[in-house]
Amino acid sequence: MTEIGKLTQGCGPLIQPLSDPARPLRQQIFERVRAAGQIARVQLAKELCISPASVTTITSELIEAGFLEEVRSSREGEGGRGRPAVALGVRAGTRHVVGIKLSDREHTAVLVDFAGNMIAGEAIARTPGAMELEGILDAAERLLDRVCAKGGVPRSALHAVGLGVPGFVDCESGTVHWSPVLSERHIALGPALRARLGVTTFIDNDANLVTLAELWFGAGRELSDFAVVTIEHGVGMGFVINHRIYRGSRGMGMELGHTKVQLDGALCRCGQRGCLEAYVADYALVREAQTALNLTHEETRSVNVLLESLYDHAKAGNSAARSIFRRAGRYLSVGLSNIVNLFDPQLIILSGERMRYDYLYAKDTLAEMKELILDTGRAVPEIEIHAWGDLLWAHGAAALALHELTEQSLGSAREMAAQ
Amino acid sequence: MTEIGKLTQGCGPLIQPLSDPARPLRQQIFERVRAAGQIARVQLAKELCISPASVTTITSELIEAGFLEEVRSSREGEGGRGRPAVALGVRAGTRHVVGIKLSDREHTAVLVDFAGNMIAGEAIARTPGAMELEGILDAAERLLDRVCAKGGVPRSALHAVGLGVPGFVDCESGTVHWSPVLSERHIALGPALRARLGVTTFIDNDANLVTLAELWFGAGRELSDFAVVTIEHGVGMGFVINHRIYRGSRGMGMELGHTKVQLDGALCRCGQRGCLEAYVADYALVREAQTALNLTHEETRSVNVLLESLYDHAKAGNSAARSIFRRAGRYLSVGLSNIVNLFDPQLIILSGERMRYDYLYAKDTLAEMKELILDTGRAVPEIEIHAWGDLLWAHGAAALALHELTEQSLGSAREMAAQ
Repeated sequence: MTEIGKLTQGCGPLIQPLSDPARPLRQQIFERVRAAGQIARVQLAKELCISPASVTTITSELIEAGFLEEVRSSREGEGGRGRPAVALGVRAGTRHVVGIKLSDREHTAVLVDFAGNMIAGEAIARTPGAMELEGILDAAERLLDRVCAKGGVPRSALHAVGLGVPGFVDCESGTVHWSPVLSERHIALGPALRARLGVTTFIDNDANLVTLAELWFGAGRELSDFAVVTIEHGVGMGFVINHRIYRGSRGMGMELGHTKVQLDGALCRCGQRGCLEAYVADYALVREAQTALNLTHEETRSVNVLLESLYDHAKAGNSAARSIFRRAGRYLSVGLSNIVNLFDPQLIILSGERMRYDYLYAKDTLAEMKELILDTGRAVPEIEIHAWGDLLWAHGAAALALHELTEQSLGSAREMAAQ
Repeated sequence: MTEIGKLTQGCGPLIQPLSDPARPLRQQIFERVRAAGQIARVQLAKELCISPASVTTITSELIEAGFLEEVRSSREGEGGRGRPAVALGVRAGTRHVVGIKLSDREHTAVLVDFAGNMIAGEAIARTPGAMELEGILDAAERLLDRVCAKGGVPRSALHAVGLGVPGFVDCESGTVHWSPVLSERHIALGPALRARLGVTTFIDNDANLVTLAELWFGAGRELSDFAVVTIEHGVGMGFVINHRIYRGSRGMGMELGHTKVQLDGALCRCGQRGCLEAYVADYALVREAQTALNLTHEETRSVNVLLESLYDHAKAGNSAARSIFRRAGRYLSVGLSNIVNLFDPQLIILSGERMRYDYLYAKDTLAEMKELILDTGRAVPEIEIHAWGDLLWAHGAAALALHELTEQSLGSAREMAAQ
């Protein structure tokens, strides 16, 4: 189409513009301290490959600005012979944030300090189904006030709120394009909540929040890159590259639940056919459960009751019930193997409350997944199963708020210092 | 599984250790100059968001070290009123590299200067099939000597060689775990070629090389993030994040051709069933072509002749022939939509010689792909079709060599300057 000769002329930028190198360094030092809990300056310099003099200068600024404080090291002898062991820690009490997770079954919230420690948690049960925007805002406000009261921190003292919802969320603009908890599409939920609460608000989809929780408080302690797959009312995915959440080129990717595992396959609630979710998610199991359990259309039960019953029947040897879990497990193995073939992660975390239906995650499924992974010579990734509750997801929402708050605050601190 | 309370203690590193900020800046300036062809210092400072003083210091070092030179700007008035218009360009003649692409049908090579300009190109036709390591080394050496002779650059003056092969390549170690052109698995082809040629050698899989060629000479001029899908004897994929090729967490991902699009589906040459490649690649079309064209097993023809014949029959209205392309197109739409749902790219480039079989890439296929993409509110990505020849792939191999060479050389220059 184009001749080689022409191609060598007039090429474009290969690299990202470099911003002020001082900014990421300042942020990295702060984040490293928060991640470590407490850490000596000499260790910081070593881990970040920077000079002790730079560490001293930048940490002094961070202490002056109220982000860090000196603490007596809990590790004996850290300060060397005869010198007091002094380490750095985050000044935890200076800022507080709330993380809220909205879901079909219940809404949850946690109040945390600036170091990420949980001060209080609250949950409100709800009737499943989509809500109007006003109803969502009411629920979030009520939950916020409850968790603040419980934690003894007035709402006016909050520095930020992080909010997680299932569905398609543009975290840049705060717009929810679709969510099972919202009755309308393309709602600017982030800005609306900010206006209602009078507090800076950050928003993301729930799979990214559970990934952020893993990054801050779980697997991220050990690994720079991993995948998280959430299986509940839908199927979600989060992916961490180099200690940061990757959302795809335009920020709306990682929709594993809607990758197609079968051409012209089962109907998905998104309206398309053959999505992984249409074989694996709650509603997919439920709609076959009525057939397997020989229920009439009138005998409606709650999703949870129906799934528990299906699971019990499968365990008791009901072959129709077993085949539902078996098929779901086989398609799950296709979805997971596709992640491995594309992203080559060292670890995949399967996360969600439904993890208790171990038929889905039995040896069969994992063995089949391994058989569908291309043999390129590398080791098959580890699979871990984490059956978190909703509070963990809310904690991820709080981590989102802390992360964004830090990015903003350290920007301000830099500007202050430069004046 | 774990209590929230426990999770908040003892977190790990969230961020990548920051290396010396001077190094990436030096590399970025060099790469920006090479990408632009020629560029004024003031423009460099503007684009990279750094001070003019820093640009002056670093470009002086790069000029002294022989990487850059001052050139008279071709743009009128660039230097301002009354001042000579001086820009910077890469000192193209100081270093030369060769890029080689090995494939089933022919081997190709290009000789380029340090700015990426092609000096000479060569191709050697070959009999399809896997070769022993010695045969591969012989072919590469013969091709290298020919292209060097044609370009008037002695082999001893080469600074590096880039090599691309189809299959599973660990570009860190230079090991080819499997390739249709190699008769054995897990071969340290990179080190073996380095030993044979006496020239530093870099190696990668061919899909990454065509992606690198797009990055340096094609779409990368405009976009920081895009996907490349190659469809030839197999199906490959390259993915660019922030102007750099992303190979997956452990460097062996992006195996789109072996993602599963059908449980228990068609047999793939990798030994598994239901891989995208088993519906879309040459060999997949060929094995059904014999049935469609009613050929006996004895009537063997070359792959190319058979595919051309199949294509002609489809165009002439043969419904069996049409159904082969139609099915391949439908599965391709599944594979492409899965990329969009996961990676959310702004652009997907379909690249390869087979792009001439437009049945595969007809409106039907692209329309079906759009229907399989989740409606999250974002625009459907653009699809471009690039029917490159093998020389472009070899040019990508040369870009690999230039990239790696620059990383090494600028490291040395920095050390020199620091002394």
